[in-house]
Amino acid sequence: MRSWNFTAGPCTLPLEVMEKAQREFLDYEGMGAGVIEISHRSPQFDAVAKGSEKRLRSLMDIPDNYKVIFLQSGGRGEFAAVPLNLMPEGGLADYFVTGHWSRCAYKECDERFGRAVLHECAPKDASGIVSIDYSKMQVTPGASYAYICFNETVNGIEFNKIPDTGDVPLVADMSSDILTQKVDVSKFGAIIFGVQKNVAPAGLVIAIVREDLIGHARKYCPSILDWKVMSEHDSLFNTPCVFSWYMADLVFRWIESIGGVAELERRNAEKSKLLYDFIDSSDFYRNNIAKDSRSRVNVVFNLKDEALNAEFLKEAAARHFIGLKGHKVLGGMRASLYNAMSIEGVKALIEFLRDFERAHA
Amino acid sequence: MRSWNFTAGPCTLPLEVMEKAQREFLDYEGMGAGVIEISHRSPQFDAVAKGSEKRLRSLMDIPDNYKVIFLQSGGRGEFAAVPLNLMPEGGLADYFVTGHWSRCAYKECDERFGRAVLHECAPKDASGIVSIDYSKMQVTPGASYAYICFNETVNGIEFNKIPDTGDVPLVADMSSDILTQKVDVSKFGAIIFGVQKNVAPAGLVIAIVREDLIGHARKYCPSILDWKVMSEHDSLFNTPCVFSWYMADLVFRWIESIGGVAELERRNAEKSKLLYDFIDSSDFYRNNIAKDSRSRVNVVFNLKDEALNAEFLKEAAARHFIGLKGHKVLGGMRASLYNAMSIEGVKALIEFLRDFERAHA
Repeated sequence: MRSWNFTAGPCTLPLEVMEKAQREFLDYEGMGAGVIEISHRSPQFDAVAKGSEKRLRSLMDIPDNYKVIFLQSGGRGEFAAVPLNLMPEGGLADYFVTGHWSRCAYKECDERFGRAVLHECAPKDASGIVSIDYSKMQVTPGASYAYICFNETVNGIEFNKIPDTGDVPLVADMSSDILTQKVDVSKFGAIIFGVQKNVAPAGLVIAIVREDLIGHARKYCPSILDWKVMSEHDSLFNTPCVFSWYMADLVFRWIESIGGVAELERRNAEKSKLLYDFIDSSDFYRNNIAKDSRSRVNVVFNLKDEALNAEFLKEAAARHFIGLKGHKVLGGMRASLYNAMSIEGVKALIEFLRDFERAHA
Repeated sequence: MRSWNFTAGPCTLPLEVMEKAQREFLDYEGMGAGVIEISHRSPQFDAVAKGSEKRLRSLMDIPDNYKVIFLQSGGRGEFAAVPLNLMPEGGLADYFVTGHWSRCAYKECDERFGRAVLHECAPKDASGIVSIDYSKMQVTPGASYAYICFNETVNGIEFNKIPDTGDVPLVADMSSDILTQKVDVSKFGAIIFGVQKNVAPAGLVIAIVREDLIGHARKYCPSILDWKVMSEHDSLFNTPCVFSWYMADLVFRWIESIGGVAELERRNAEKSKLLYDFIDSSDFYRNNIAKDSRSRVNVVFNLKDEALNAEFLKEAAARHFIGLKGHKVLGGMRASLYNAMSIEGVKALIEFLRDFERAHA
């Protein structure tokens, strides 16, 4: 049987997509070879590359003056690509830090490429509740860009609005909430996301970049991180991660088939409401994120008695739940409710949480 | 049926490996999830990561004072990583260019990171025969490293010995001939290879680096290209390309099962001899690489009447041969005989070549 897979990424993918990929694994479109065994310059793979971009543009309503670039540097690679492409030597940029990953992006820039201005934007109040403070998101004069992580996978914190940075391009890492809700792309200078949460197996990162921000890379920017080089070659400057790209295309088709991003937004709101409502109603579990800052896709929670953590994970495993252990930097538990997680999965999790509470309260 | 797949990469993989991956695609080791759906920090994936490194070390007899680093920048990313890790600001390095990919590596360095000294080492003689000229491989005083591409995939040229660069570390791109023959790793400062020829689907590049060469990266080297950062984190600094890594481990196991690199070396010598002997015996096909410089894994050839190229590819496709078209920069034809290509495949190709010659000579 399939487990209920709440892993934070790499993570569960739609079953239909997994089954299709399995079926045609040895023979893609009658070629007598798998899609991972054919040239990335073949007509068959070209259809994957071009088709996936077209589908993503349609699903996200990406304006024509944005390039969509498929890369294989990982999210961490784009943490370097952002300053390398957008910040001139001696420049500065604002980092609105709300958790682990925006802090990592800040460090990548600050230690290597120039002045990164740190804004701590997710303070904890006296009762231990964390919330996003948008009033702290003030741009510094001369900033090349302002950087945010729209959803903090580790911390379970998500923006519920887009900060206004005026003429300073806003760059957002949306690795964990891309395609989980409608987003107005035109409000951003660049959106970057690793595919390994809502799109495909790890190995691909996609950058959606406003055209006027392309072509300013530093002299020593490696080609594979230079958005101009990569976009001019239609993301085929070097051999891409063909399997992740193919799987992304299958997932984009799956999203189309179920009603697009609007339907996923509806499902994700329902799933997260079910789980947060249960946690809030319980004295046994707790979540310390302010309601208006909670992630819809990464629900972090703690057992009030943390001595029960090991027993909790053991009983969860016995009931076919995997991936509930929180990130090492935060501890506790985390349930990731990405697009491929069904409402049934969330209901099953709540049933387990209730049973565990009854047995151990 | 499976095609006879002579594609230069991504390319054919061992059928047993493909079938195993297909079988367990939805359920890896009873987890109720595919290997692409589980955390890269899970015990199950940790076994893949550690096991694959151990197997590669054993297959290649990698000395203990070398690190093995799994990265996802692609070969092109490592073209930047080499100078970023090995050449100080204002330094220089020697590039012994024998074809397309060593020239690309040269350009990546020369245009971005410092002085790359170009040595043209594959001259063409008056009769049009290309050969590697080892006498031109003289290091420049002060060079941080000397760079070679051990097998030029596009040009069908391969080193048949390791040039002596004295104390200057020799860096080799072995993307297309890694694990196809025994290599004395201790002669190299670093060996880099993309996996998409002999190891796994595209998305992973492996660097084997002598320890004393690690830890000297430039300040602005992106973390994902910094061998020190990546090796200190056991190649799990960021989410790796889990599927390619898993497939690499399966291929390493397959190599062990058939008798190791020595057996592959024997098979590859036999395969390439069969094909070159046929081409040399024919007046209809030709190969213009000197015998001592010919690649054992990428056999480039031309029809003497190039007007027949389209018909050749059409008839090849009808007989289930794919990937025979040469690289766009060179034209002509190319048959890649990587580890997963069987002797039967090569014999079938020769039969087709003979039939086509009979019909069109």
